[in-house]
Amino acid sequence: MKSSQMKVSQLGEKQLIERIIQKSKSCSIYKPSDFNDFDIKTSIGDDSALTNVNIDSNSYLVSSSDMLIQSSHFPKAMTHFQMGYKSVVVNVSDLASMGADNIGFLLNLAIPKDTLLDDFDELICGVIQACDNYNIPLIGGDTNEANEIIISGTAIGKVDKERALMKYGFETGDLLCISGELAYAALGFELLKIMEENPKSKEIIDKIKSIDSTIIDLAILKALKPEAKYEEGHILRDYNTNNNRITATDITDGLASELYEIISSDKKYHQLNKEGQYTKGIRIYEDKLPVEDEFKEIANILGIDYLDLFLHVGEDFELLFTINKELEEELSSDMNYYIIGEITEGNTVEIVLSNGDIQKISSRGYEHLK
Amino acid sequence: MKSSQMKVSQLGEKQLIERIIQKSKSCSIYKPSDFNDFDIKTSIGDDSALTNVNIDSNSYLVSSSDMLIQSSHFPKAMTHFQMGYKSVVVNVSDLASMGADNIGFLLNLAIPKDTLLDDFDELICGVIQACDNYNIPLIGGDTNEANEIIISGTAIGKVDKERALMKYGFETGDLLCISGELAYAALGFELLKIMEENPKSKEIIDKIKSIDSTIIDLAILKALKPEAKYEEGHILRDYNTNNNRITATDITDGLASELYEIISSDKKYHQLNKEGQYTKGIRIYEDKLPVEDEFKEIANILGIDYLDLFLHVGEDFELLFTINKELEEELSSDMNYYIIGEITEGNTVEIVLSNGDIQKISSRGYEHLK
Repeated sequence: MKSSQMKVSQLGEKQLIERIIQKSKSCSIYKPSDFNDFDIKTSIGDDSALTNVNIDSNSYLVSSSDMLIQSSHFPKAMTHFQMGYKSVVVNVSDLASMGADNIGFLLNLAIPKDTLLDDFDELICGVIQACDNYNIPLIGGDTNEANEIIISGTAIGKVDKERALMKYGFETGDLLCISGELAYAALGFELLKIMEENPKSKEIIDKIKSIDSTIIDLAILKALKPEAKYEEGHILRDYNTNNNRITATDITDGLASELYEIISSDKKYHQLNKEGQYTKGIRIYEDKLPVEDEFKEIANILGIDYLDLFLHVGEDFELLFTINKELEEELSSDMNYYIIGEITEGNTVEIVLSNGDIQKISSRGYEHLK
Repeated sequence: MKSSQMKVSQLGEKQLIERIIQKSKSCSIYKPSDFNDFDIKTSIGDDSALTNVNIDSNSYLVSSSDMLIQSSHFPKAMTHFQMGYKSVVVNVSDLASMGADNIGFLLNLAIPKDTLLDDFDELICGVIQACDNYNIPLIGGDTNEANEIIISGTAIGKVDKERALMKYGFETGDLLCISGELAYAALGFELLKIMEENPKSKEIIDKIKSIDSTIIDLAILKALKPEAKYEEGHILRDYNTNNNRITATDITDGLASELYEIISSDKKYHQLNKEGQYTKGIRIYEDKLPVEDEFKEIANILGIDYLDLFLHVGEDFELLFTINKELEEELSSDMNYYIIGEITEGNTVEIVLSNGDIQKISSRGYEHLK
């Protein structure tokens, strides 16, 4: 039987794990690197992963676990490679937004019995490629059977206590920033939906491609193969010295949702540690949002409010962060970023629109189970 | 609306995470303990969990991740509390079989949108109760939507390098042992199946209960609420000094499967580190297996070979371990265990039956995706 017809059920769990081990060895992830001097004692398939680390009282162990479910997270157009790749990205993003160094990744994969072996192999390749890109060794995991593809990953890392990037701790006047343009993934999901469901999709896509085909390609790429802002997280972490004040989080449920999240987090921190009423808020400016005119035009043709894509969808994986004003110039010599607003004294989360109107931002974002 | 009718979709992901945080605070897991002096900086719901640990070059970071899927792992009779409880047990068991101290547990939960809030609460209580029992703080996690209940847990711990209990490293003549009686969970699954599917189930259950109702009750309990052998793992770890030789693994896919696993693991270790042909094997003795006569009688009435339950089903979570002969007496003063055989010179995995016949043991065990 050609391997293109073989199903995973012909191998079974043990041989599939063996296959993962073989594939991971053919990758470069076992090289020591600048960040990690590691030595993996056990192989994937042992009871537990044993990893050499050095974490003393100056550092925290950092850990994050996210699950991706085919019917919720993978558009029909997504390849198995991209599914595997994304499962690493969503977890590395959580570590990157703390400024953590990566230690290891555990992969928990559940797939239908009749999954083609070729598709399984592709998925594993996606995982390994991402582990390689983000310098995070695949140290353990498991395979199981389920009715659809479910990938649960856990990323483990460490971070200097003094440098860890929290969601809270900003002050009035601090600049609110993002590490890159948002809304591309959101537009991508819209386009994929059109391509799946709309009989007139070819017409529509041709029309918007004539405005700017790069935007279309980028939107679809960002929807299917997002990247974590690993370098940016490290740069911010390195700047997070006693003289500076930096907070950060990654944008997954939409900018608006994250703005309310950081206020909520900062408020809790305030209530636990300080006296008096909490009075911080956020103001962003439509004119400062990095959105190309062609993007707005494309959204318009599709009958979508571009601001909705920018604020309320998510899956961008860019970093939302705050810095003290003094840091602005020095930071821009080390990384690209956009200042989109600031921390205010008022208790609101608002946007100053291009026409001058000030509007409260709805906290609406993508929320599972609602 | 009474809380007994409320669905999780009425709260959504963010409020559900808040609910988990509240429930976990009402537990005793934040007390420092003999094993862990920990301080959890972030709360569940933050980008990543930050944990104080101290792991230097004398210890390994230990991590394990296992997923439980409703249609594969949860009998219909299992309560939501038991589902949550088991999700911790399967992961703590992997750490216990290395002799690790627990650091933290990450919970990744996917549930159908129309799950009753009461059932969600019960599930979380099960998780928290288990975390409490095994002294492993709930440090992070996530909730998602899926078509059935899927729980992916990750347990993180640490172990002294010199004491870590591996699967390999035993020598000819070493005693093969188990930490407790097997086959109860296997019997339990059979009984639950009968109770679900067999119209004559009441008759059958009454008949076998008249032989020994304790066995029936224990079987069902072990199937629905297994426990990890945490204390036993620590005792073995403490005995694993330079003067002794101890290996260990936990029994999840069935004793036979694990016997082949440890031989395979030891063979790989031998091939990487030693010269010459690999010549170790295992012999166990039917007469040494701890099985009560009433258990055998019950299996007989059900038309099941009790040895099949003992060897080929699993979900026991007992430890399978080897010790050098000299350790036998001293160890028995600290823990209960059963010597069921020894490591041999031959290349076989065999059983000496009560009638004197020697049979090769089939490696058949429970294997997903086959």
